[in-house]
Amino acid sequence: MIYFDNNATTKIDERVLEEMLPYLREDYANPSSMYDFAKKPALAIKEARGKMKDFLGANNEKEIFFTSCGSESANMAIKGTLNCNKGKKHIITTKVEHPCVLNLYKSLEKEGYEADYISVDSEGQLDIDELKSKIRKDTALVSVMYANNETGVINPVEEIADIVKTKSPETIFFVDAVQAGGKIPINVKDTQIDMLGVSGHKFHAPKGVGALYIRPSVRLTPLINGGHQERGLRAGTENVPYIAGIGKAAELALNSLNYEMTEVKRLRDKLEDGILKNVFNSRLNSSLKNRVPNTSNIGFEYVEGELILLHLSDIGVCASSGSACTSGSLEPSHVLRAMGIPFTALHGSIRFSLSRFTTEKEVDYVIEKLPGIMEKLTSISPYQDELMKLKQRRG
Amino acid sequence: MIYFDNNATTKIDERVLEEMLPYLREDYANPSSMYDFAKKPALAIKEARGKMKDFLGANNEKEIFFTSCGSESANMAIKGTLNCNKGKKHIITTKVEHPCVLNLYKSLEKEGYEADYISVDSEGQLDIDELKSKIRKDTALVSVMYANNETGVINPVEEIADIVKTKSPETIFFVDAVQAGGKIPINVKDTQIDMLGVSGHKFHAPKGVGALYIRPSVRLTPLINGGHQERGLRAGTENVPYIAGIGKAAELALNSLNYEMTEVKRLRDKLEDGILKNVFNSRLNSSLKNRVPNTSNIGFEYVEGELILLHLSDIGVCASSGSACTSGSLEPSHVLRAMGIPFTALHGSIRFSLSRFTTEKEVDYVIEKLPGIMEKLTSISPYQDELMKLKQRRG
Repeated sequence: MIYFDNNATTKIDERVLEEMLPYLREDYANPSSMYDFAKKPALAIKEARGKMKDFLGANNEKEIFFTSCGSESANMAIKGTLNCNKGKKHIITTKVEHPCVLNLYKSLEKEGYEADYISVDSEGQLDIDELKSKIRKDTALVSVMYANNETGVINPVEEIADIVKTKSPETIFFVDAVQAGGKIPINVKDTQIDMLGVSGHKFHAPKGVGALYIRPSVRLTPLINGGHQERGLRAGTENVPYIAGIGKAAELALNSLNYEMTEVKRLRDKLEDGILKNVFNSRLNSSLKNRVPNTSNIGFEYVEGELILLHLSDIGVCASSGSACTSGSLEPSHVLRAMGIPFTALHGSIRFSLSRFTTEKEVDYVIEKLPGIMEKLTSISPYQDELMKLKQRRG
Repeated sequence: MIYFDNNATTKIDERVLEEMLPYLREDYANPSSMYDFAKKPALAIKEARGKMKDFLGANNEKEIFFTSCGSESANMAIKGTLNCNKGKKHIITTKVEHPCVLNLYKSLEKEGYEADYISVDSEGQLDIDELKSKIRKDTALVSVMYANNETGVINPVEEIADIVKTKSPETIFFVDAVQAGGKIPINVKDTQIDMLGVSGHKFHAPKGVGALYIRPSVRLTPLINGGHQERGLRAGTENVPYIAGIGKAAELALNSLNYEMTEVKRLRDKLEDGILKNVFNSRLNSSLKNRVPNTSNIGFEYVEGELILLHLSDIGVCASSGSACTSGSLEPSHVLRAMGIPFTALHGSIRFSLSRFTTEKEVDYVIEKLPGIMEKLTSISPYQDELMKLKQRRG
């Protein structure tokens, strides 16, 4: 099995699992309890918070809040701050956000919020001028993803933070960094970002744990009211094993950033070049620059994405068309549509996402096998004339 | 180490961990993905949903929604239904709820809701007549816990459901069953309960996973907006290992209910009788009947609870005063105060909570050791006259 879908989820690192196991076995105390038996789990949370602080480049571990996932981090950040700014009813995000933020914005519109969705160009780059022009004094919140889950395109969130704060110092700026964490350095303390969320299972921690950085000046109400956990901002007995796990995963990811940005990038580039060179109806669906190092989104013109995935699955290769959170839907990707990807490639776009566990052999295997699959699929495409012309044009 | 704090959290059953491990290791696919590799995790969720359906006595697995904890289940149920009934601003709960519901109600009061908190008697029994009298046509929600976490007292939630629906058919009735799950049978389909929440770590699943039963007629908005997971009501990549775990734990708990209600009850009663007989300044802080089989809350008059816990911890025994979710606070338990427990016992009340892993030897050990500890602690109590009188009175 060859796994090229690391933007959907990742394999838990063995060292992360090792870190978790004591808390799944003998050290099971509730960390809020007063007896000695609870000291080790309580310490595990404290240590994980410190590691997450380092991972996100925060000033203080008190700025780190653990959640159950990236979606919870985003909902907690967005709903929580809007609840504390009820007078302001304007919110901004991008057209290419993850469904988590986009669907939340749609539901906020139904509740009376006015929302602006900022455009991207054909390479997936955000229109910063448009964003700037939309910021108003009554803009409660701006939410921009750090890196896009489908294309890997990186948004200049530090620059955007400065723009937001210059135009409207009271506006809160949230960054969904779920696809950036572990792929590029994050350093909130040198920015004007107010809140930033990550999800453990995108960097080799388990599914079911996330974190949210909150600048101390930001006021928000809890999404989950109740006990005193997470300084009163997130009730519920702490998930000690997973918190220990995400802490370890953050530490490992921080240590692997250089590998990610050199070796993983080299493998991604090799895969991408190999496909683009050997498959005449392929095209890159994004900017070559400003991308996270592990992601490649390639459009295969005049073929159906689901068919490609099926054939890849048959030879043991896992990849995806768009986000796992929208899979099952027959709609083409909202990200690629916002980029104006031609409809001839829209339905046949595949995301390959690598990780530090990806091997050269796996990359070579896909480069070797994909042209044959594509030859078969183009031969049964109803667009034979168009394919012929494309082949002639691209030589 | 002797663990008598199973209402705070429980040890994960080895069989539950075994069920989880494949999803923490090789079967790590995102269950929403389309390739074959995702089929096993997707199936694991489906099977867990079926087991949870059986555990709660629901009609259909579509009525089961997985969450990240009991607090999330309660917040999702309460906030979600109130969002769909914005015209109604009256809500009811009890004075002895878990902080999760109580603190949520306090925050709802700040948002303009009018809340009634129903009383309990000196044995912890809910005043059903008071509850009945408070239900109005504009009551949006009634929230009553199934079993109290501190005393173990069971509320007649099935009868309460009928009362609510008779007086106001549109009022939603939510049951926080976190302390009932795995201790007594739950059978929502034969009741008029609208929603019911449980937490995995109270019945030998890990901390960080819960479930919410929702009757199909109930309308609610998501607490966590985003992807299509959990039928659009709870976004976020599913925590497959823990969902598989809570399913297995539900199956095991259902199979162990008889053991819980006979053998665990026998051990609890033995512990309780042993303490009440051998420690002259002890008293039972609840009804003898209508209790879950594992819990005993005992007041030790004229001594400080934290001191008792410290001495128990020194001999390797874990117990608690009140809820772990309020620990660290110096306030005496809101539950015992609502019951009118005399202040002489209020500060020295200890909860012992057993599980199916509790052994006779452990019970015998506490019965043997506690009188000595209490002798020492009463000897240094500043209330020597009162203790003398109590000793004479109780013989």
